[in-house]
Amino acid sequence: MSKVTVFGAGAWGSTMAQVLSDAGNEVLLWGRSEDVIAEINTSHTNTKYLGAHTLPHALTATTDLQQAFDFSETYVLAIPAQQLRTTLQEWKPFFKPTSTIVSTLKGIEISTQMRMTEVIEDVLGSHKIAIITGPNLADELVLRQPAGAVAAAPTTELAETIRDLFRTPYYRVYTSVDVMGCELSGAIKSVIALAVGISIGMGYGENTQAMLITRGLNEVARLCAAHGSDPLSAAGLAGMGDLVASCGSPLSRNRTFGEVVGRTGSMAKAREEVAKTVEGVASAGAVVEIAHRVGVEVPVIEAVGEIVSEQLSPEAALQKLMEITTKAENFIR
Amino acid sequence: MSKVTVFGAGAWGSTMAQVLSDAGNEVLLWGRSEDVIAEINTSHTNTKYLGAHTLPHALTATTDLQQAFDFSETYVLAIPAQQLRTTLQEWKPFFKPTSTIVSTLKGIEISTQMRMTEVIEDVLGSHKIAIITGPNLADELVLRQPAGAVAAAPTTELAETIRDLFRTPYYRVYTSVDVMGCELSGAIKSVIALAVGISIGMGYGENTQAMLITRGLNEVARLCAAHGSDPLSAAGLAGMGDLVASCGSPLSRNRTFGEVVGRTGSMAKAREEVAKTVEGVASAGAVVEIAHRVGVEVPVIEAVGEIVSEQLSPEAALQKLMEITTKAENFIR
Repeated sequence: MSKVTVFGAGAWGSTMAQVLSDAGNEVLLWGRSEDVIAEINTSHTNTKYLGAHTLPHALTATTDLQQAFDFSETYVLAIPAQQLRTTLQEWKPFFKPTSTIVSTLKGIEISTQMRMTEVIEDVLGSHKIAIITGPNLADELVLRQPAGAVAAAPTTELAETIRDLFRTPYYRVYTSVDVMGCELSGAIKSVIALAVGISIGMGYGENTQAMLITRGLNEVARLCAAHGSDPLSAAGLAGMGDLVASCGSPLSRNRTFGEVVGRTGSMAKAREEVAKTVEGVASAGAVVEIAHRVGVEVPVIEAVGEIVSEQLSPEAALQKLMEITTKAENFIR
Repeated sequence: MSKVTVFGAGAWGSTMAQVLSDAGNEVLLWGRSEDVIAEINTSHTNTKYLGAHTLPHALTATTDLQQAFDFSETYVLAIPAQQLRTTLQEWKPFFKPTSTIVSTLKGIEISTQMRMTEVIEDVLGSHKIAIITGPNLADELVLRQPAGAVAAAPTTELAETIRDLFRTPYYRVYTSVDVMGCELSGAIKSVIALAVGISIGMGYGENTQAMLITRGLNEVARLCAAHGSDPLSAAGLAGMGDLVASCGSPLSRNRTFGEVVGRTGSMAKAREEVAKTVEGVASAGAVVEIAHRVGVEVPVIEAVGEIVSEQLSPEAALQKLMEITTKAENFIR
């Protein structure tokens, strides 16, 4: 039995805390909101984020940062991706040199084009840093529906430690030593999910979606390869798995936003209808830059970039995409 | 401009004939039914299979087998997979040694566990044989919605010839020299789609589906590798693409059948509700045998085999699947 602290008491952090508790760990959940934390401790619910769902009674919560860091040496981060840097800068004095940091965040830091573990290392210096990622929608995982995930770390030993920490009868955790490939796949999938949403909004069906998903993941794989990571991570749970789950869920913000763009042809209307931050919109430009930096052709991702930056209409972008010469279908070359 | 004969005037054959006509070829469509063929020639519709859709006026049709074979030297087969052998045995005298045969069939011949091009070669002997496959639901492709496909042949030259024959502004055709991998991927996808349907019937959401799709394709990739074909074909349009389209379509027979099994736990009820042949049910046993012959572990496919043969309930099969030890997430090793 290990002790683990989860930072972030939203839907995702609370779900991760439940998984870790179900896996037999002693878990402390840290959150900013006094109300949310008090409710978790007293009635074992988090109605703001998880409705009537009852969390494990063994799970305790706190707003006290010192207590959270003192509780364990394993810190699971479930805070918003674009707030990671400023949050860690603020928390830096609390981290111990021996602590293990597990990122559950998906995204690219827009201003620096860094992956989440790069931001962690940039702010905190060298630590044992791992990630857990995959097709894990919080609202299904919290109901303990069967799901798979990947624990990735620089060493097999650390990846297996993280796998053992999280795995439960309903949560199958595989291991990987390709942190970069898993992170790139998880971040870029939001851009492809946006493309799929746009095609749905334009009135197209499964054939078009499947083409965008498959050729989009092909681009992710080539991007991974160009960065020296394993292109097959894109074909695993972090890439294909996560993308399929995002595209299948009508609740996915990327898909929903894309649908409005495809239907109306207007980014302004989409911003109006989907008021929240949409990761694929925010990061499309950064991903195109990442691709250009290593000289990889990414026509699906570029099409999204051109739609999002209002250089092309969805129709014009799709037509441009369909006109590109087709060659051999190679996943990684 | 090439001349092409398409054999099979159902929804799929008629759609393929339209694509070939749109691509600028002179196309003759052969079918058994006098009524269907007469209707295509006079009113350019095929109401039995394609509703009110109007086919290209340039497209002509015939029931005359001699005329069909004399018309061209490129024969596109769009007949039912399990009838391929007996049909070809009957047609054998018509084939010329110089003719090119393009299979659009997906499936494994149950009695022999042969792939479709193996059956063709077994009956007709050596010919120029190619396939075209991918996420192409007929009802969407016939509306000219954007779609991708793979033309696979033993040589790049033949694959490119087939690509050039089929490609249109709405149909992106990639090439591959991995006929076996593309055929195995296209055949086995129906078994995985059945698994996904079962999970939906059991009440599970996107996480569970994405896990089954990703890990199922991992099994397909390993099966391909064990047969000496390219495991990455499973990550392409023939594998991932086709599977995603099948799982996304509520009209997919594999998915629909699986949903009834998952919901009721009864194969008999599913057979009652879905009266037609379901490829994934028919071929699950054959695919398990193919896997065992080469010593590849295929837990998702085996779970489907055990449910279909009524050895395990969906609940028991899923539980067994979730209990298997997770190791490194490798796509092909």
